[in-house]
Amino acid sequence: GHLLDSQLPKSLIQPRHGNSYKNHHGHLLLAGGSQNMGGAILLAATAAAKTGAGLVSSLVNDNYCPAFTAAHPGIMFAGWKSADLQLMLNKANALVIGPGMGQSSQAQQLVSALIDNDLPKVIDADALNLLASQAALTDKLQKNAPLVITPHPGEAARLLNISTIEVQSDRLSAVKLLQQKFGGVAVLKGAGSLIYDGQQLWCCPFGNPGMAVAGMGDLLAGIIGSFLAQGHSALNSACLGVLIHAQAGDIAADAGQIGLQAVDLLPSLRGLVNPTC
Amino acid sequence: GHLLDSQLPKSLIQPRHGNSYKNHHGHLLLAGGSQNMGGAILLAATAAAKTGAGLVSSLVNDNYCPAFTAAHPGIMFAGWKSADLQLMLNKANALVIGPGMGQSSQAQQLVSALIDNDLPKVIDADALNLLASQAALTDKLQKNAPLVITPHPGEAARLLNISTIEVQSDRLSAVKLLQQKFGGVAVLKGAGSLIYDGQQLWCCPFGNPGMAVAGMGDLLAGIIGSFLAQGHSALNSACLGVLIHAQAGDIAADAGQIGLQAVDLLPSLRGLVNPTC
Amino acid sequence: GHLLDSQLPKSLIQPRHGNSYKNHHGHLLLAGGSQNMGGAILLAATAAAKTGAGLVSSLVNDNYCPAFTAAHPGIMFAGWKSADLQLMLNKANALVIGPGMGQSSQAQQLVSALIDNDLPKVIDADALNLLASQAALTDKLQKNAPLVITPHPGEAARLLNISTIEVQSDRLSAVKLLQQKFGGVAVLKGAGSLIYDGQQLWCCPFGNPGMAVAGMGDLLAGIIGSFLAQGHSALNSACLGVLIHAQAGDIAADAGQIGLQAVDLLPSLRGLVNPTC
Amino acid sequence: GHLLDSQLPKSLIQPRHGNSYKNHHGHLLLAGGSQNMGGAILLAATAAAKTGAGLVSSLVNDNYCPAFTAAHPGIMFAGWKSADLQLMLNKANALVIGPGMGQSSQAQQLVSALIDNDLPKVIDADALNLLASQAALTDKLQKNAPLVITPHPGEAARLLNISTIEVQSDRLSAVKLLQQKFGGVAVLKGAGSLIYDGQQLWCCPFGNPGMAVAGMGDLLAGIIGSFLAQGHSALNSACLGVLIHAQAGDIAADAGQIGLQAVDLLPSLRGLVNPTC
Repeated sequence: GHLLDSQLPKSLIQPRHGNSYKNHHGHLLLAGGSQNMGGAILLAATAAAKTGAGLVSSLVNDNYCPAFTAAHPGIMFAGWKSADLQLMLNKANALVIGPGMGQSSQAQQLVSALIDNDLPKVIDADALNLLASQAALTDKLQKNAPLVITPHPGEAARLLNISTIEVQSDRLSAVKLLQQKFGGVAVLKGAGSLIYDGQQLWCCPFGNPGMAVAGMGDLLAGIIGSFLAQGHSALNSACLGVLIHAQAGDIAADAGQIGLQAVDLLPSLRGLVNPTC
Repeated sequence: GHLLDSQLPKSLIQPRHGNSYKNHHGHLLLAGGSQNMGGAILLAATAAAKTGAGLVSSLVNDNYCPAFTAAHPGIMFAGWKSADLQLMLNKANALVIGPGMGQSSQAQQLVSALIDNDLPKVIDADALNLLASQAALTDKLQKNAPLVITPHPGEAARLLNISTIEVQSDRLSAVKLLQQKFGGVAVLKGAGSLIYDGQQLWCCPFGNPGMAVAGMGDLLAGIIGSFLAQGHSALNSACLGVLIHAQAGDIAADAGQIGLQAVDLLPSLRGLVNPTC
Repeated sequence: GHLLDSQLPKSLIQPRHGNSYKNHHGHLLLAGGSQNMGGAILLAATAAAKTGAGLVSSLVNDNYCPAFTAAHPGIMFAGWKSADLQLMLNKANALVIGPGMGQSSQAQQLVSALIDNDLPKVIDADALNLLASQAALTDKLQKNAPLVITPHPGEAARLLNISTIEVQSDRLSAVKLLQQKFGGVAVLKGAGSLIYDGQQLWCCPFGNPGMAVAGMGDLLAGIIGSFLAQGHSALNSACLGVLIHAQAGDIAADAGQIGLQAVDLLPSLRGLVNPTC
Repeated sequence: GHLLDSQLPKSLIQPRHGNSYKNHHGHLLLAGGSQNMGGAILLAATAAAKTGAGLVSSLVNDNYCPAFTAAHPGIMFAGWKSADLQLMLNKANALVIGPGMGQSSQAQQLVSALIDNDLPKVIDADALNLLASQAALTDKLQKNAPLVITPHPGEAARLLNISTIEVQSDRLSAVKLLQQKFGGVAVLKGAGSLIYDGQQLWCCPFGNPGMAVAGMGDLLAGIIGSFLAQGHSALNSACLGVLIHAQAGDIAADAGQIGLQAVDLLPSLRGLVNPTC
């Protein structure tokens, strides 16, 4: 295994071309944010925009669209009911599926409609829980599409049908089992996040316990998705995302680990993705 | 009686563990925010997140959920009508009941459903008014659960069936009577807030008259609830909460006592709960 | 006539008492903000809170309440339809009537219900237009209640049944006629705002042409109302309000008069009402 | 052709008059922001207010009005369904038509109702797409009214019935063809934006590839519209708008081109329109 190095962005992230158009920087589509659970998708989408995706669109419960748009007018928030899902899929070149999605029957239908294509994907949170419980969904997931799954230990336990304690007692085995089950790149979150793509294993030496609060995983999913949309491989996206997320958490913790919130990471993201700036 | 000491956080608040998960830092559930009175729960929830609760969920009138979520995406805002109350209670390890709750029949039902359990609780504002007027509610309140009540002098008067002038003319007796009536820890707010748990009496020498504005009590309820959720005793939570709230008010008053608003306390909360930072 | 002096706040605004309670600093009720015109009441209410009113409540079109509450959780925003108007009036000790109110029949009913009492009042904007066109409303206005009217030249022209050019060509006569017609204190806004109470005439030498943008008058109404709620006389409230509003405008204009917006005045208001700070 | 010079604002933008009233600084009406596409109009309206329009009103899908008003209370947001369109047109002295408008039948009706007058106009985004596909709309566009069209290369291609590659391979010819087809002033966005009014050709040497993200064009439309409302000619408005937009983008890019968002340009706009400040 290898440790993620703080020089990674400098080697992987290229400067913008002189003649760019907004589609050149990728169009990320995020889906989640069911009723009473909307904040997750807002955090993920904001983090994606701040880490360089040229266009960010989000499918959320319709009720959230006006307030979210007011807060982030550069991000498109479209309602599950009112949006033209196929049109949005056609425009996207990467997906984040799961933050705040819930496990309702509508959520299942939405996940089902979103995973049957060859777009690079981050699958997170409740979408992972749905995959764990619905074999038909796992079958639909196209194996040739770049994939990053981002379970926390509790989600990993459900995905592997073992206990959270078992996951945490042997995180290395857990991340390998997750990768074998779903293919692609598995990220096992927690202190010392692990990244495994079937061959390489990476561990993140950054981050701090103040990051163990609501919404942190949503940011990570958005950041990894942003790198996928910008054309990075699944493994590089996962490594860059985990690294930058942890570094932003460490910067935020300078003002104290206790009371640190997910939104406190947002101000430092742009600096971290512009390493030569 | 004792005076609250500014060194209290340093002695009571421990650094985060290296291997934390968000549930380790507590899950606070707040309930209140009825129609036209939503701001109180937003202030309480925000203060709770900034003082260290790992997860913060809030039950509010459904209409507020989208706008509140947009403003604070790391906090879950769920509607009274649409939320699964029992599921939310099962996930919580401490409660704040009352900010902006109103005294409607739905509010009574909600209070009734929330107090019949052994979770640590802060009961504030209209929930106190309901307790004062509905003996059946007081009976439902489980006496073995850690409890902090946080009346201002007017609420104390209603709870004790005396006048506000009588409360203020002998605040010491009032806080003792409040504690005898409800058990747990009574906090009598106002200049020189008093805290009494049946044995120890504490008085807060901090704070300033600029804090006599709307929403200040809501912040206090949220902060005390946050400490309950993080595993502090009712007495320690009340003492830490009253102290930090007053200190944040003093910091905010550096820019002038007149025109000071409750939200002006929010930026300094994280610094105050990280005393060694 | 006299020129407003920048030392006025130091002589009129007293420090907060040591034993204050939030009602001591006044409860201002604002009414306005009809459909598609809500921003005016939000600006007025925000300015009122930042200039020292202990409690600020606002009657607005119901649709605005959630988003406004999210933006300013310390201010109560209650819907015209859903609020208990009489209860709100009973709690208030000063009123601001008019910002964004429109001139619909519901607006007329609301104005009618709000002016028939002896509370100190600021009447502004469309409420002035309604007074100009509905003699029955003018009759209802209790003459013994402290009153400040705050027309801009166009509103003054409608109130006096002359042209705006006539108002501007002899502003001194116009402000005197306005005072004679409605009693109380008349404020004629514009470059060199004039204040007249039937005896004293004051002129404001501060302010700048960058302040000629949307929402500036709404801020002024809120600030004057805040001083009324805190117990200042109508004349002193008008003088303090006009002075502080103009000074805040001059501070904001340091970054350029062009593109200055009403919200740019908000950050300096608290400093201006704490002159000894 | 000429290069836009950074001294242009100093020569074209006059200081505010000492005796200004808010109508003196222009009243810009923007129309767009259909369901799920509201952010565009919010960005355009905000940029217009920050660049000096005295009054800014926006027609958007009704659902957005409360949240947008809360975010920017000095701007009027009125719903397509609930607003009195003719009244709003009567008050405006310049128009921006298109950001986030969509191409629904209601959008067509709205565009049709807005272009049949002699007000100066910016036509952008979907309004351009509608013009490209509906000859009847192009006929309705009054040829004597000052006009600026602001297509990006993809929109230019649709307007000219050629491919985007053809547009980009000869941008000079494309901007000339656009101007011949619609009259007025054509702005062809992209690296080295071109401005052509049938006689003069201007090219913008500022800007950077980090600006190739969602919402950048919306800001530009709002800024150009703001200058039209303040009385500048179509050509001067286009030149000032393109220049200031690009300069604001360069200032924003100091913190990194990657992850730069449209909202990051807003803080520097006021400084750029006050060149002598």
